[in-house]
Amino acid sequence: MDVQGSFLDQLFDRGLLIETGVDGLYGRSGVFEDVIARFDALVTRYGEADGAEVMRFPPGMSRPHFEKSGYLKSFPQLAGTVHSFCGDDQGHARIIECLATGEDWTGEQKATDVVLTPAACYPLYPVIAKRGPLPPEGRLFDLQSYCFRHEPSLEPTRMQLFRMREYVRAGTPEQVVDFRESWLERGQELIKSLALPMKVDVANDPFFGRAGRMMKVNQRDQGLKFELLVPVNSEESPTACLSFNYHQNHFGQTWGIATDAGETAHTACVGFGLERVALALFRHHGLDVKTWPKPVRETLWG
Amino acid sequence: MDVQGSFLDQLFDRGLLIETGVDGLYGRSGVFEDVIARFDALVTRYGEADGAEVMRFPPGMSRPHFEKSGYLKSFPQLAGTVHSFCGDDQGHARIIECLATGEDWTGEQKATDVVLTPAACYPLYPVIAKRGPLPPEGRLFDLQSYCFRHEPSLEPTRMQLFRMREYVRAGTPEQVVDFRESWLERGQELIKSLALPMKVDVANDPFFGRAGRMMKVNQRDQGLKFELLVPVNSEESPTACLSFNYHQNHFGQTWGIATDAGETAHTACVGFGLERVALALFRHHGLDVKTWPKPVRETLWG
Repeated sequence: MDVQGSFLDQLFDRGLLIETGVDGLYGRSGVFEDVIARFDALVTRYGEADGAEVMRFPPGMSRPHFEKSGYLKSFPQLAGTVHSFCGDDQGHARIIECLATGEDWTGEQKATDVVLTPAACYPLYPVIAKRGPLPPEGRLFDLQSYCFRHEPSLEPTRMQLFRMREYVRAGTPEQVVDFRESWLERGQELIKSLALPMKVDVANDPFFGRAGRMMKVNQRDQGLKFELLVPVNSEESPTACLSFNYHQNHFGQTWGIATDAGETAHTACVGFGLERVALALFRHHGLDVKTWPKPVRETLWG
Repeated sequence: MDVQGSFLDQLFDRGLLIETGVDGLYGRSGVFEDVIARFDALVTRYGEADGAEVMRFPPGMSRPHFEKSGYLKSFPQLAGTVHSFCGDDQGHARIIECLATGEDWTGEQKATDVVLTPAACYPLYPVIAKRGPLPPEGRLFDLQSYCFRHEPSLEPTRMQLFRMREYVRAGTPEQVVDFRESWLERGQELIKSLALPMKVDVANDPFFGRAGRMMKVNQRDQGLKFELLVPVNSEESPTACLSFNYHQNHFGQTWGIATDAGETAHTACVGFGLERVALALFRHHGLDVKTWPKPVRETLWG
């Protein structure tokens, strides 16, 4: 905790991150953003030859799509729904009064059709489904968006609002497993080119509650999730900077996505935690990008 | 409405925007994003000589800061608060049951410390205040973020989640008025370089309710807000693509920002609606960027 606190404090002192008074919610300096942009461009170079279709979704998605996705079954604690005031002058007067007296005014707010995007790929699946059966070669998408997870933390690597870059593959089990294998290799090359220490390990998502315990065990036993871990907060608990996820037919079934042969499509994704990689770089190479090792600077800035 | 509907449909058909089932909430194609990025870079070139400090905030901000900002007094209908589930296995079971039976499950959600950013500059003012009195020359900031406004619409120019680029000036009334004057000129040059028709007009913000009517009149009478308008949906109701706002001492007083001389600081901002400018370009130059006029292509792509 002390070490984590002090890395976060160093980032604040240096102005790389900017405090807002809410844990896990920070502004970014121009330098921090430039590192993110350069790493994002590096990911593009590694994936370029595959010809993925680029889509960019805003940080919120359709609530009906979100409800259908199954996210609330697995991770209700992390979701963020967007609520708005739909009242009249009287309701407005009550809000103003509550604010003046320090009472909770949010009771006037009603859920809208928008929820915050929990992972960059969640808005994509209904779009794939709408296009009809996949072509024989399947499909490949390139995504990036701000994502929200309600988990306030003092670890700088656990932000409530952060950016995730993703490649998402939809196709036959073979196509999808090949995709994940190739990114398991590429991901390690990519992080090596940044001179960061790492290991790859099997992992599980933070499934909620009692029922979630078995889901974690199953996910690990089946090797559905791997993470590329870099020590940032501590050596003992390294940080997942990339993840490699095989969803089997989960999204294909949920959304009715069919392969060219009429089978339920399988999907997989590789995700890059952009803030986490930037933080790993600042942690290992120092808070002044001008003093980063020359090969790392060349990899990022060319 | 027919014309608007058909421009939105054209954008969907062409794949430039991607439907989500929620009005005003769209995915963007790679081409659409490239236009946004190029225009964003053009704004940077116009502002470069001023040496603004770059900050980037996520699409959400601190709820306590938001409450203090005064936004709820003026625009309660547009705000979006973020709510999360903080319960246990029983609460989770209720959510799952509601989802299964089609009942409203959002009653389990509680307001978090996060609200969606309503305009790129809202998270900035408490950061300026925290730094203490302004230096004699004042301060200048460069911002950009996704913003949320709860106003579902079929006009493609009125999105619920959209990006706003801003320059924000804090200083003496003279410094701040000079800044706004110079951007009123630059903004027109910039839009002329994109061969878009335009006019500049006095404007008002959408203040809420009965009390809001007088605020609209006052804002217009005092010339506090100007907009650069480009016809996109129709000639009769052109779209505000840039706005030039003089806040007088509103934020300085709210946040306790002092000038070097110990007076309450004044602030002003120029805002660029990035999606709106992109839509204006597609409207006037066609849906295929390769056929845009050569001078426009050179301005954007160099």
